[in-house]
Amino acid sequence: MFERLDAPLLGRIAAITSLVEVVPGVELCRQGAIPDRLHILLDGQVTLSGTASDGTSAVVEVVHPAAHFVLAAVLTELPYLMSAHADSRSRLLLLDAAALRALLEQAPPLALALMRAEAQDFRAMVRQVRDLKLRSAAQRLGCYLLALVTDPTAQAAELRLPFDKGLLAARLGCRQENLSRAFATLRAFGVETHGARVLLHDVARLRAFAVPDELTDPLTVTANCI
Amino acid sequence: MFERLDAPLLGRIAAITSLVEVVPGVELCRQGAIPDRLHILLDGQVTLSGTASDGTSAVVEVVHPAAHFVLAAVLTELPYLMSAHADSRSRLLLLDAAALRALLEQAPPLALALMRAEAQDFRAMVRQVRDLKLRSAAQRLGCYLLALVTDPTAQAAELRLPFDKGLLAARLGCRQENLSRAFATLRAFGVETHGARVLLHDVARLRAFAVPDELTDPLTVTANCI
Repeated sequence: MFERLDAPLLGRIAAITSLVEVVPGVELCRQGAIPDRLHILLDGQVTLSGTASDGTSAVVEVVHPAAHFVLAAVLTELPYLMSAHADSRSRLLLLDAAALRALLEQAPPLALALMRAEAQDFRAMVRQVRDLKLRSAAQRLGCYLLALVTDPTAQAAELRLPFDKGLLAARLGCRQENLSRAFATLRAFGVETHGARVLLHDVARLRAFAVPDELTDPLTVTANCI
Repeated sequence: MFERLDAPLLGRIAAITSLVEVVPGVELCRQGAIPDRLHILLDGQVTLSGTASDGTSAVVEVVHPAAHFVLAAVLTELPYLMSAHADSRSRLLLLDAAALRALLEQAPPLALALMRAEAQDFRAMVRQVRDLKLRSAAQRLGCYLLALVTDPTAQAAELRLPFDKGLLAARLGCRQENLSRAFATLRAFGVETHGARVLLHDVARLRAFAVPDELTDPLTVTANCI
């Protein structure tokens, strides 16, 4: 996010930043609260979820390092739309929100950097909306598994699910029983599972079924957030 | 979007802006293309949709005046994730993308204004993701109808759907037959329809069923885009 900034500006950002380590389960942001800091995840895993007023809750995103959250709330000074919880022991940078807003009024390159970061965030959410509207749960799972394949020319692949199936179901927007059904559907497309270990025997066939997006952004938060 | 900017800066923006009028069906942006201008809709209606590589298409957003689209692509110089089509005769401002990017490097207040606009766009998409993951089609329809009620204290209301049911189904992320089923479900919660005319006989009951979000942003693009 800050890679194009010069050393003096990075120094000013460092001066408003602190490093924290948290244990699993810690709440980092609470939906409805006014944001007081921007979070950058260095190590660990964080879940962003939204809760309706009847108490039902949806996982909007699972954040992996290095990625920020929830920039939009910090920049607008509007209440968090999501709560954030550490899923594992995590290390984070916390940037004071008011100081950050003051700094970006004085430092146009920072404003441009944050603007680019925000645009990436927006695009990641547009992808999710498209995904939820266009694809079945089995196709969404297929796209998710294909995104874990690092070699773009691979015909087969072996992967480990980076988190448990309960969280995966929530991230994909389906119930856990639907996730099991989705894995069962994908068996016909060469997907074999042993717990968290997944074998893709025929990447081309899975791709033809799941129809992943061709438009992926280079090196974005999308690559870090599933 | 530009309300906090001073007159000289507005003049510089005007110098890179043109006004166009388009007829229904005109394509304003094409998914995959590199953006060459920012669009601001003054009159009419525009649909933003994403198409998968197998040709299936999803309506991500329906844009009403005055709202911009697709700012994130313009700022990042990354390909449009969505195509935009005019649904009706529409009037738009077109801001040259390269000139806008050059201008915001020189004019920090413009960068801040666009940053706020982007943050609102992001939050509108987060709401959609939450909506799609948390709610049934009938609940999503209920939330949509409740959002059309302008008087927050109303116990009953009469509304007109701002566009046809085909587009409404697409925007809500369901098939047209599911939308009919959703309207049928809502009958038990006091929703009566006569074509585009909708009567809500019991707003409180509908609210209890559909569970709309409490966190709405003040005067944002969300208020313009359903």
